[in-house]
Parts: sequence; C-alpha cells; structure tokens
Amino acid sequence: MKINHIVETQQFTQPLLMELFDRANLMKKIVARGGTKDYENKIMTSLFYQQSTRTRFSFESAMYRLGGKVITTEQAAFFSSEITGEHLEDTIQIIANYCDVIVLRHLEAGGAKRAASVSPVPIINAGDGAGGQHPTQGLLDLYTIFSELHTLNGLNVAFVGSLDNGRTARSLAYLLSKFSRIKLYFVAPKEMQIKPDILEHLDENNIIYTLSDSLEGIIDQIDVLYQTRFEVERFPNVNFDYSKLKTDTSVLQKMKYDSIIMHPMPRDIEISHSVDSDKRAAYFRQAKNGLYVRMALLSMLFDGN
Amino acid sequence: MKINHIVETQQFTQPLLMELFDRANLMKKIVARGGTKDYENKIMTSLFYQQSTRTRFSFESAMYRLGGKVITTEQAAFFSSEITGEHLEDTIQIIANYCDVIVLRHLEAGGAKRAASVSPVPIINAGDGAGGQHPTQGLLDLYTIFSELHTLNGLNVAFVGSLDNGRTARSLAYLLSKFSRIKLYFVAPKEMQIKPDILEHLDENNIIYTLSDSLEGIIDQIDVLYQTRFEVERFPNVNFDYSKLKTDTSVLQKMKYDSIIMHPMPRDIEISHSVDSDKRAAYFRQAKNGLYVRMALLSMLFDGN
Amino acid sequence: MKINHIVETQQFTQPLLMELFDRANLMKKIVARGGTKDYENKIMTSLFYQQSTRTRFSFESAMYRLGGKVITTEQAAFFSSEITGEHLEDTIQIIANYCDVIVLRHLEAGGAKRAASVSPVPIINAGDGAGGQHPTQGLLDLYTIFSELHTLNGLNVAFVGSLDNGRTARSLAYLLSKFSRIKLYFVAPKEMQIKPDILEHLDENNIIYTLSDSLEGIIDQIDVLYQTRFEVERFPNVNFDYSKLKTDTSVLQKMKYDSIIMHPMPRDIEISHSVDSDKRAAYFRQAKNGLYVRMALLSMLFDGN
Repeated sequence: MKINHIVETQQFTQPLLMELFDRANLMKKIVARGGTKDYENKIMTSLFYQQSTRTRFSFESAMYRLGGKVITTEQAAFFSSEITGEHLEDTIQIIANYCDVIVLRHLEAGGAKRAASVSPVPIINAGDGAGGQHPTQGLLDLYTIFSELHTLNGLNVAFVGSLDNGRTARSLAYLLSKFSRIKLYFVAPKEMQIKPDILEHLDENNIIYTLSDSLEGIIDQIDVLYQTRFEVERFPNVNFDYSKLKTDTSVLQKMKYDSIIMHPMPRDIEISHSVDSDKRAAYFRQAKNGLYVRMALLSMLFDGN
Repeated sequence: MKINHIVETQQFTQPLLMELFDRANLMKKIVARGGTKDYENKIMTSLFYQQSTRTRFSFESAMYRLGGKVITTEQAAFFSSEITGEHLEDTIQIIANYCDVIVLRHLEAGGAKRAASVSPVPIINAGDGAGGQHPTQGLLDLYTIFSELHTLNGLNVAFVGSLDNGRTARSLAYLLSKFSRIKLYFVAPKEMQIKPDILEHLDENNIIYTLSDSLEGIIDQIDVLYQTRFEVERFPNVNFDYSKLKTDTSVLQKMKYDSIIMHPMPRDIEISHSVDSDKRAAYFRQAKNGLYVRMALLSMLFDGN
Repeated sequence: MKINHIVETQQFTQPLLMELFDRANLMKKIVARGGTKDYENKIMTSLFYQQSTRTRFSFESAMYRLGGKVITTEQAAFFSSEITGEHLEDTIQIIANYCDVIVLRHLEAGGAKRAASVSPVPIINAGDGAGGQHPTQGLLDLYTIFSELHTLNGLNVAFVGSLDNGRTARSLAYLLSKFSRIKLYFVAPKEMQIKPDILEHLDENNIIYTLSDSLEGIIDQIDVLYQTRFEVERFPNVNFDYSKLKTDTSVLQKMKYDSIIMHPMPRDIEISHSVDSDKRAAYFRQAKNGLYVRMALLSMLFDGN
C-alpha cells in the first residue's frame, strides 16, 4: 500500500496496520543481525520546533539501523539568524532539497498537514501541538500490544492518568476501535477524563467502554494497563488521592499473569520503580518497539516513493 | 587548481569559477543517482558560533551525499564548560585533530581568515560577521544564474532590498563583475543603497550600473531579479512605500518570459507566495544549487589536499 | 581483559593500561590509513547533561573513524518536553534501546555509576560533576606521556595550576602512581594545592613528591610539565603573582631538551602562544591522542560485549 506522508492516525486502516506490523517484525530481525545498508543513500532530517529528545533519538536510531544518514535540529524555531519564525511552508521547501524524508515536530496542531501539502519529500508527524497528533506513538503502542499478546482482538485495555488531553491514550483508543471484542476502561479523576469525541467514535464502532476513577473491580480483568502521567500541575484545584491510580507491587499482585503494563514515558510517580523487574512491565520494551515501528514506517515511505 | 581554504569571494578567478561549476554539474548527476561513497573516510565539522540552520543543513547534506560524516555544533561560543569564548585559534587547532574539514560560522569579520592561518585542515567560511564574507552563498547564487540562463555574459541583473549591508547582494555583484556585458540595477530606498566600495569596484571593471528606488522602467529588461529582505527594523525613520519593491503577480506580468527571480532566503514579505508556482521563481532551485556547489567545494578541497 | 563500562580511573590496572595503549597505537595507524569499517553497525549516543563540545567531538570523531554512527544531545537535562529532570536510570534504560554504547556527561558525581548499574549497553563516563571522575581524560594524558617519552617509569612530572579540584591533575597523579621511580611536583599557591587524599595514596604507593608554589629549582629536572588553569575566579582573596607559574619562552629555555608541556585545554593565560611552535609543546598532540584512546576504549567495549 502506498503512503506519501505520515500525518495522522486516521490514515491507518486495519490492513495497513497489519502490513506495518509485519514490516516491524522484519525490522526486529534486521536489528538483531546488526541493521541493513539498504537505505544508505537516504538522508533524514529531524526538524524539531520543540525538544523531544526521546522521540528524536528513536527516529534517528531507526534511520541509522536502516543504513541512512541524519541531519538534525531541535531548535527549528530559530531556523535562521535573520528571521525568527520563518514561514513553515518555506522552511519545508528549502529543507526538502537536502534530504529524502523530514521528521517534523511542530508546535501547532495541523503543522504536519501544512508541511505535507507543500513537501516534495515525505513528512512524518512526530507530534504537532497539544491538540494535534503524534501518530507514530499510537502505532508503536499498538504494535507493542500485538507483539506482547500476539493478538489485537478480544482485549481488555485500561487507560489511567490525565486522559483529557492525553494524546497517546486518545490515539491508542482510536486505533484499538478497529479491532473486535475490545473493551476499554478509562480511569481518571472526572476532571481529567477522556473527551466525548473519542467516546462518540467508540459508540459508532460498537466498542464497549466504562469510565471510572478507580482500578477497583477492573484490575484483575485487564490485559493491558496503559498508565500515563497525572499532570497534577494542570489541575491545582482537583482534590484527588492519586495514590489510588498508581501502579505498585500491590497492584501487580491483582493483575493477570499474562497482562502487560505500558507507559509512553517519561514516568513521574505513577509507576513504582519496584515494578520494573516484573516481566509484565513492558514500558522499556515499548521504547524498543518504537525503533522497529519507525524503521518500518521509514522503509515504507522510501519503498513507495 | 589547488585551493587550501575557502575564505573569501576574491579567491575565485573566472577559470576557477568555471571549474567549480563543472564540478557542481557533475554533483547534480551524482545526487540524482543517489550520491557517492568516494569521500566516506572524511569527517566534516560544522563549527557554528551562531545558528544558521539552513546553511548548516546545506553543508551537512552535501557532506552526506559525498559519503562522508559530520560532527556538529551551533553553540560553538559555549565550547567548553570552563571558559566562555576560548581563543578561536586554539579551538581550531584542537578540532582539526578530529576531522578533515571545518565549516566555520563566526561572529567577527575576519574570523575565517584567522582560522585558516592556523588550521592544518581546510576551513570553509560559512559567514563571518555582518561586515564579513559568506562566499559559498555568492557562489551558489552565481551558479544558479549560470544553471538557469546558461551564460554569465550579457545579463541585466537587478538587486532589490536593503543592499547597504546585504552580504549576498554585495558578493554576487562582485562576482558578476568578472563577466562581460553585465548591467546591474541597484533598487532600494536611498538609505539602504549599495555602498560606494562596490560601485568603485564596478567602475574599475567597466561594469554599467544604475541606482534607483523603483522597478519602474527596469522590470521588463532584466534577466535576473535578485530580491532580498527590506530589513525595515534597521530603518525606523525611513518613510518608504515598500510595496513598490515587492514581487507579486503584477510584477511577474511585466517580466521577461525567460527571466528568473532569486532570493537568498528566508523570505519575509518581499515576494508573494502566489509567485511560487511561476516557473521563473528560482529560489527553491537556488537552495538545491547550494547543495551541488557545496559538494563541489568540499570535493575540490579533499582532492587537492 | 573484559570491561563492561568505563566509569572510573580505578578500573585500570597496569596490564589493562598497557593493553589499552597497544590498542591506541593500532588506532593511530588505522586513522592514518583513513579509518575502519569494522564497527559500522554500531551506534553511539552522546548523552551530555552539560555542554562539553571538545570532549563530545573527540568521542564522535572516534566513533566515526571506527565506522560507526552517532546520536547526540548536549541538552539532556531537557530530555523531554513534559518532565524536566527525568530520572537518570529511566533515561538510560530508554536510550539503551537505540544504541550500542552511551557516552555520558552528567552533572552529579556518581552519575556514571548509577547509569552503569541499570544499562544493558556499555556506559562511558565523560565527566560526572566537579567532584566526580573523567577517566578518559586521565587515560589520554597518560597515553600522551607514554607516546611522547616511550616510557612511564622513571619520570619527573610537575603539575601546575589550581590542583585542589583539578580533576585532570588528580587523575593523572593517580595513574602515574602505578609506575616505578616516579617523582611528582605539585606547584600551586597553597590555597590551590592538591588535596591530602591524593598525597595519602602516593604515600601508600611509595611515590616521592614535593609541594611548592614556584617552578624555581624544578624546571630543569622535569620530564613533563602538566599545566592547568589557575581558576583565579574561585580565589578572589588570594594575592599571588601568577606570572611565576606561567609557561613562556623564558621557561622553555630552562626545560630539558626532551621534556614535554601538556595542558588539558582550554588554555587561558597560563601558556603563552609563543610556546606553541616549540616541539616540546605537546598539547595539540595530546588532543589527537584523545581520539586514539577513545577509539581504543570504544573498540574494547564493542569487542568484549
């Protein structure tokens, strides 16, 4: 299937997701044997208007494991010494002369779409604003579930944390709605609950879900515990006992033997470090999957273009 | 012809320019077929005392298309954690141990010359101060004219914008003076007009030129419209209708069919985005030519050293 | 000999130092013939919580000469856009998924040890705090002496400058104590003198040393003059004639024909630039040795792991 840019999660149909995951599995094998040189003539630009070293490193490692090269800035807002805040479309049309793909982290929702509309080389959206998208994160999260549990059907998935503007939880919920017999649990103080647009989408797709502010009565049934930050700083007036939503060893004891715990990182206080050594703690493997999925996406763009 | 460093435009005689452009044409073909590995053992350092991501990316892409490697900083002023503002000559003599060529962006005019005087590896001046040089920009501008119009003789070239300290316009005017039957038009509010030193140089070389503050009566005769920024911020007391100097679709209608519009970028308001789709809009191709010219320069330095 | 991480100078026994220096000699030959591709599948991460461009460039050049690739940040403290100051152990466990070795510059003493305790890939300490270690600097200093004077036994070595928290002088004194018939001279105003812990270590190893605040009576006997900065800013109340401790051409005249002058760089006023052209000025060669030693260390880690 041919894709020209990776701008939003909605581009990914179920067949395209399966093609992507097949390719990610292949990339896992390629990394294990030391990478490939198949894309050694390709140059990737990391064009970051905001620091996000974790995401940048993941993409750059992916490009290197594919044999390619990388040009990078985390200060794209200060792109030139003459004008601060140059027109994004101009910047893209200049940079496109120097590379074969642009990984863009922008500050405004819709930035990636604007870039894609003028770019002669593929754009990959690496996050565009708080209200925007970060599709590769959603894809690597879905791949992690697939890779750990060997299916995407019939799963019970709980999302915990500040879900209202949690880009990662929103994207993953959206992607899971493409599969069957899915049950979702949104667990957050009511002020931080998932927004109605996602629930409407789930209703349209006949996905069962519940809203609550506690893991009580849920924790022993879930296959995936997707923990995110509480972002307490955004809710100074909310009086909530966040310890109820933390994952620690006592929570582990109630979880199914073959369940997994995920986190998009960085972690604050929401998962105890004592959980790390449990085999169900999948968040560091999740980071590794980001490498495979990004290699798969880059190679799909290169092969199709 | 052997060159050791690229410090100033004056180094480039007409034969050397022609050799450079032949090589740039070759590089264009090399890029089209995916680059070369001929310089895979070479390391380039981007040593930037000032951010200039566009210039840096152009050089780094050039180095990668040649097969080489890149070490980079845009914060060379904070070179060490111990001393702020280390002696440039010391920095160069240290860095030279780690690479095969240094691309230097310095803050002081003459910085590149100082660096070249002590460096055991080639120095390329990527801009040294407002009053200094930025020779590779002038070279890529000249190459763009050559590449688009297939000659450098008999051309009418108009420079528009704040020309007084416009490094790019000054360099290109200087380079054009090496060719025959050139006519130059300097178009700017009188406070921003080109400085006498350039005019004296043109007089010495019998180059015809005019000064004006309007494109009226000129626009239908020119082959190259070289538009630069107005830098209004430097002239708060100048009361001028800058719209007279803007390039928009109405200006396009008056221009010759086979003329071109150039801009060193970044663009502010001086060229309408509606002009971009016209084939005479050469500024994005100009950026691409920066790649070929810098590949040519790097390869000349490597082959000669 | 197998090493998993390079955290502190104390790891290096005399046999391991000799193995390292053999390997560094080999790397010198490899660089002379243009580098190797033996490690082309390896990725190094430069994870710097503090700018130290000189050290970073030295490591990155080493990695490129070995054929490998580099991912880099000098602003690791702002690692994510969400949390400032993420848990070091988490950062390491994420980054380790993207590379084969992590070069860490941390702000706190002990940072490298903490990183090594959780990292599945080798950690190299590139400096961890003022009171911490910077082992590769000590190793390249020792290698420089070995490389210049062809022995590490029977040497008279003078350390000059602010020695009290001089990480480089302290490390080198420690390493020299492993060799025989060494005599050390610590030359500094008494407020800046070397700390008792080093002197105790020298006593335990039967190393002869003297303390003084002048080069008088010493300068014609020493084989190595290791000059460091005076750090006058840390001692506003010390009234001392620092010119007595400067190395200039008059000092050169008193030095042995086959002695060497070293400096970890950056240099301030303590060595006159007029000294640079003397063959005994070894400080730029010392920087080059940093390349060979770091290539040797990286290759030892890759080969052993």
